[in-house]
Amino acid sequence: MRGAASLLTSPLEVIHLGIDSVAEAPRHGGAPVISAEFLPPAGGDAARVAALTRLSTGPLSREIDAANQRALSRFLSSRPHLAGIGIARDVIPGMADDLFLHAGPPVTWDRMCGPLRGAVVGGLLFEGRASTPEEAERKAAAGEIRFEPCHHHQTVGPMAGLVTPSMPVFIIEDLGDERRGARTFCTLNEGLGKVLRYGAFSGEVLARLGYMASDLAPVLSAALKARGPIDLRLLVAQALQMGDEGHNRNRAGTSLLLRELAPAVVRSCPDKERAASALEFIHRNDHFFLNLSMPMAKCMLMAAEGESLSSMVTVMARNGTDFGIQLSALPGRWFTGPAQFVKGLYFPGFSEGDANPDIGDSAITETAGIGGFAMAAAPAIVQFVGGSAEDALETTRRMGHITIGPNPAWAIPSTGFSGTPTGIDVRLVAERNLLPTINTGIAHRNPGVGQVGAGLVNPPWSSFHDALLALDSHIAKNR
Amino acid sequence: MRGAASLLTSPLEVIHLGIDSVAEAPRHGGAPVISAEFLPPAGGDAARVAALTRLSTGPLSREIDAANQRALSRFLSSRPHLAGIGIARDVIPGMADDLFLHAGPPVTWDRMCGPLRGAVVGGLLFEGRASTPEEAERKAAAGEIRFEPCHHHQTVGPMAGLVTPSMPVFIIEDLGDERRGARTFCTLNEGLGKVLRYGAFSGEVLARLGYMASDLAPVLSAALKARGPIDLRLLVAQALQMGDEGHNRNRAGTSLLLRELAPAVVRSCPDKERAASALEFIHRNDHFFLNLSMPMAKCMLMAAEGESLSSMVTVMARNGTDFGIQLSALPGRWFTGPAQFVKGLYFPGFSEGDANPDIGDSAITETAGIGGFAMAAAPAIVQFVGGSAEDALETTRRMGHITIGPNPAWAIPSTGFSGTPTGIDVRLVAERNLLPTINTGIAHRNPGVGQVGAGLVNPPWSSFHDALLALDSHIAKNR
Repeated sequence: MRGAASLLTSPLEVIHLGIDSVAEAPRHGGAPVISAEFLPPAGGDAARVAALTRLSTGPLSREIDAANQRALSRFLSSRPHLAGIGIARDVIPGMADDLFLHAGPPVTWDRMCGPLRGAVVGGLLFEGRASTPEEAERKAAAGEIRFEPCHHHQTVGPMAGLVTPSMPVFIIEDLGDERRGARTFCTLNEGLGKVLRYGAFSGEVLARLGYMASDLAPVLSAALKARGPIDLRLLVAQALQMGDEGHNRNRAGTSLLLRELAPAVVRSCPDKERAASALEFIHRNDHFFLNLSMPMAKCMLMAAEGESLSSMVTVMARNGTDFGIQLSALPGRWFTGPAQFVKGLYFPGFSEGDANPDIGDSAITETAGIGGFAMAAAPAIVQFVGGSAEDALETTRRMGHITIGPNPAWAIPSTGFSGTPTGIDVRLVAERNLLPTINTGIAHRNPGVGQVGAGLVNPPWSSFHDALLALDSHIAKNR
Repeated sequence: MRGAASLLTSPLEVIHLGIDSVAEAPRHGGAPVISAEFLPPAGGDAARVAALTRLSTGPLSREIDAANQRALSRFLSSRPHLAGIGIARDVIPGMADDLFLHAGPPVTWDRMCGPLRGAVVGGLLFEGRASTPEEAERKAAAGEIRFEPCHHHQTVGPMAGLVTPSMPVFIIEDLGDERRGARTFCTLNEGLGKVLRYGAFSGEVLARLGYMASDLAPVLSAALKARGPIDLRLLVAQALQMGDEGHNRNRAGTSLLLRELAPAVVRSCPDKERAASALEFIHRNDHFFLNLSMPMAKCMLMAAEGESLSSMVTVMARNGTDFGIQLSALPGRWFTGPAQFVKGLYFPGFSEGDANPDIGDSAITETAGIGGFAMAAAPAIVQFVGGSAEDALETTRRMGHITIGPNPAWAIPSTGFSGTPTGIDVRLVAERNLLPTINTGIAHRNPGVGQVGAGLVNPPWSSFHDALLALDSHIAKNR
């Protein structure tokens, strides 16, 4: 009725599309103004619009579409399995005794954020290369060890993502026909509270890492040898029907994994207290499966790399300072920008001032179409990151606008069993001015504090704009 | 455009509400007729309309509302825990060596359906009271054993629901302040395929029952003693956020239960192969938790019994021949009608002609606000019972129209965390002409075949109409 009344008294009605200030005059004059959101493609920048026009129109556009379909199809035919557990120095290609791996694109000690520095300190203590945190910091700053991204070694790690030579890691193996034997790696998830991946390095953190290396990993390794590989793609398909999105919520994945492992753990472990403790360790940590959904995603995305015309994003990763992406057509090349701050809900006693910028390799889940892209599968996640169940549906629908196609193997019941939106097309991100939504934890900016909240975050625009321009010039040079 | 065209050529438009034949003349004349669904309350029967008017208007209506709120509040304050496992003859009140319990309202051998007869035959073989199926049938027909409903003994059973004296049963104990120590019981779920609850009695069925009594039950019993009671209400709250509805889908409940039990099973069982087999038995059967969601529901509903003015339904149960309900105000009194046929999806090779009418005590889950009432929590269930994810949401919304209130402890993420619609009000069912929706398995009508499908079913109208009239005359007599 109010709308009808204002219609009668106001001769002017405005639907506004464009620069905000234009609408101010009629709005001040009392006219009803509806502002339609509008942004020119690629933010309106002339060079980017030209690149986008070349890549998104004409015969080249169709060739890129075909390349993207091939890349997606290779992704979809990957069959990542949890095949075993090994020690980083023995199994990760290129791992060395003086090498620490970290999340995100390359970063030097002087530019590392608090949580990553804390994790490095913890890593030096864990490896016995330092006996106090002060000594560890000194040695790290002096270059006693080298730092390289996990992604340079077929590895991913949540938050700080630190992998040191003595840490046990899951071995994921592709058992698909096309890339049989391809491997990726990830540490075992430590649980919540004070943990290395959030930069904590106290005695309890190191003791837990010790238990994981001396007890948990051998027990699970023996169980895996006894039962054979676990099909992670199938397990995620089930978990997506059980309220997980595979990044911030992994309760179903963890539960299903425990079901698969428990009988074999009991049979293969000679010491029943050791077996019971291993099962209890998994049971107490609903995030345990995250360190499997991540290397599973990495395994599938590696299958999509190297399609020479493909504009598909194959890596998104953050080190807490920089955010970086990679494209299928330009494997190994990083396009970086500043890591952003996460918008979300904080644990009691913490607020935005405590937050570190976005950190971790876990955005590999969104790159593979789960995590924030599959939020519709996990409406309960909104209790953790904010928003409503409807927002969760909407996020998944929106991600459908920037992706190459659905993954029919991962169906979301609440959207009529549509497949998860998969394969970010850097052209679509630029054209629609729509960034990927990442569903993530928030680390305290100081080392040693831990997680302070969870929420949603976007990558920086520069990663996508630079990648678009690089793809354009790469294609121009090679044709 | 077609609608607009017919509007121009037809001077008559009809919105029809009422008796179908009235609309035939204008419809034949070519007028567009929209039939609005309309039924007079209580099916229009004069005696029922009079009873409904007495119970649903004036001060009595408010007294009944208050009694229903008290019944619901007692339901909500029940704290059912899985407390242990015992042998039926030792723990079920009134159990005797010559007594078999069955699902649904009372029924004699001559009126028993195929699957229930098959289960009785299996029970006699399992108890060693017969050595061939023929001998068992003869003895059952000759009255060698007595038959009573599970519900007469604080017990519930899925499908045939057969409980014989030597069977192990879960012991559910109310640890709430108001009814501390109240107990309900249910057998352990056998799994899928050829099973006693669907009327199968072959060697493999009896062997499995033997394993469950000799191995599974003692292993789980020892584990429960070691770890203490498991809060089932809390576990169901989690499972409802993980795609279960607690009747036809129990994958999350089963997974979470296994997580809770596994470490204690390992620690308390001296024989590791026995421990591993027990965990494997649970892992292989996603319905294992059904036999806990049922007695949990029974425990909570028993707390709501005996509120003298309450029109809340406290039992819905079927024996494959009759469907029966009970009311809070009239505890122990059955209102029965013919069990209906389930509409749903059939397994390959089976069709409607193979189906037995609706059977089992499992409708106790709907009586407690889960199962069909919580279908919105389990959109994936539509792959099993037919329909769309939207239908699942709609069913839960519709059940809100015939229930006393939401259960805030069981929130459904996809409906904005609304509580499950709980406590069927027999007045609302009559007034709105809206029957409860039950989400159930379909048994083959012949003994020994097993499950042939799954789907949705309604109770017969007579149960609810008779209960309404009985409540009306009970209140008239007692005031």
